[in-house]
Amino acid sequence: MSNNHFSIAIHGGAGTILRSSMTAELQAQYEQGLRSALDTGYAILQAGGSSLDAVEAAVASLEDFPLFNAGCGAVFNNKGGHEMDAAIMYGKTLEAGGVCGISHVRNPVKLARAVMQHSGHVLLAGQGAEEFARLQHLPMEDDAYFYTEQRYKQWQEALKEDVVQLDHTDKKYGTVGAVALDKAGNLAAATSTGGLTNKKYGRVGDSPIPGAGTYANNNTCAISCTGVGELFIRSVVSYDISCLIEYKGLSLKDACQLVVHDKLVKIGGEGGLIAIDKYGNIEMPFNSEGMYRACRDSRGRNEVLIYKTSTP
Amino acid sequence: MSNNHFSIAIHGGAGTILRSSMTAELQAQYEQGLRSALDTGYAILQAGGSSLDAVEAAVASLEDFPLFNAGCGAVFNNKGGHEMDAAIMYGKTLEAGGVCGISHVRNPVKLARAVMQHSGHVLLAGQGAEEFARLQHLPMEDDAYFYTEQRYKQWQEALKEDVVQLDHTDKKYGTVGAVALDKAGNLAAATSTGGLTNKKYGRVGDSPIPGAGTYANNNTCAISCTGVGELFIRSVVSYDISCLIEYKGLSLKDACQLVVHDKLVKIGGEGGLIAIDKYGNIEMPFNSEGMYRACRDSRGRNEVLIYKTSTP
Repeated sequence: MSNNHFSIAIHGGAGTILRSSMTAELQAQYEQGLRSALDTGYAILQAGGSSLDAVEAAVASLEDFPLFNAGCGAVFNNKGGHEMDAAIMYGKTLEAGGVCGISHVRNPVKLARAVMQHSGHVLLAGQGAEEFARLQHLPMEDDAYFYTEQRYKQWQEALKEDVVQLDHTDKKYGTVGAVALDKAGNLAAATSTGGLTNKKYGRVGDSPIPGAGTYANNNTCAISCTGVGELFIRSVVSYDISCLIEYKGLSLKDACQLVVHDKLVKIGGEGGLIAIDKYGNIEMPFNSEGMYRACRDSRGRNEVLIYKTSTP
Repeated sequence: MSNNHFSIAIHGGAGTILRSSMTAELQAQYEQGLRSALDTGYAILQAGGSSLDAVEAAVASLEDFPLFNAGCGAVFNNKGGHEMDAAIMYGKTLEAGGVCGISHVRNPVKLARAVMQHSGHVLLAGQGAEEFARLQHLPMEDDAYFYTEQRYKQWQEALKEDVVQLDHTDKKYGTVGAVALDKAGNLAAATSTGGLTNKKYGRVGDSPIPGAGTYANNNTCAISCTGVGELFIRSVVSYDISCLIEYKGLSLKDACQLVVHDKLVKIGGEGGLIAIDKYGNIEMPFNSEGMYRACRDSRGRNEVLIYKTSTP
């Protein structure tokens, strides 16, 4: 099936990313963050590692990069804290792990993996999930670790206007994710997010939910989404693409086209996703202005992109 | 499409429900609880009310009935509290609302509906969700309301053995749910649960997740599940049935057969579900010993059932 072909794709969120509000320096920083995460995951695949390890490492790298809305760069919620969501899924076994509304965990994607492998459950929430993280001896951080001046300013602005905001004053769906196919033909997907700036009431988006923001199945594809989480949940976006491939015989490209550029557009579901099918084909569709994204495969494809048209 | 035909189905959980451990008196109580909820929902449909109102009212009735694991009869978690999950979805608009890990809310299904209609979000968790419930002026209860001697004993037993248990010492997936088609041809689904006795770490099951334990889509069907939540999430059970109908052209009956009696069985996914398609056909499949269930339609079908074979 795989001929030892392997591939990885990552994203750092979609939305209104305008060239006009981007400096060359900032763009270089974003590209560096994507490149570093991409190569981290790629190296694991190249060395014969599993897709599960590759997506976990790539997402952890994005979580550790302060410009993306996940891990240390997570946005502030309404109470001035950080509530993060993450998930991971393994296409070989359909095992999945997710966490929602967690604080203090340095790498939520690692907690998601621990949930998958050691909790006997699929989804853990809030303080209970944090308790489990401590039992699993995962690195924990105090609030200061999650402080970035940019995010704090965004929160203060949102508080002033009493709005629940996305990543930026520019409309941006801050999420990070990775999908991969390894040499053994196994698919995996992972997603992590800090959610919405100034969010209230314990809001949970699509990221931590298998079938919504994150899905992997060796029979079809691996998917990680970024966008208006509510509409992605209602549309069961990632499992929808899997079903269009499995039950309707669509190619990954056609399934992505239908879901991202037709079904989601019709309901106002702005955003995008990254996807790899069981043959290693990569799709990175989005219906917003831009999406931080990158991909690399064993046949030589190697891209780091932000806007609709390719970066140089 | 509907010819004014309407129908409703409800469940009160599936699992190892054995005639040998059931007294005539207890069985009569269960049947009374089901009958009362069924007729409450049916009356709304008969009067021309919406499927959304019917499933909400039927599930609220089941939540108010102490023998089922939802609302006042919710099981104890590891800390001696109650963490409930619920969801509701409307097939006409694909709007959905869900809550997870909530306490003190008398009727979690009503909170799920408030989330759907008034929060701007789809899924709220924990204390944030409770805060939203208070703002919505939903009836709140103190811990005593959720105390039942039977549940307390089950928890004490589970604590002693340090196990995370299902509803009973008998393996039972305590969840309640309802699906309905109204005279206008609109489908709706709702699910509510107290989860697992002695559960830890903020575990969330499939019930509150659109596409997993709860789903409704006027193009296909409405579904409410009960069973091993983890496997139902990983299998995206309710959206899977919808996709088998929409993309593969299966009938509701064949889609239910494939998912409940083949796909779920292969991975150990014990449980069942209730389903109504856009024509008003009702299916109530389960792969466990029994499932508390009932259905009624405008063509005269009217059943209250517990075991595999019909009750008298």
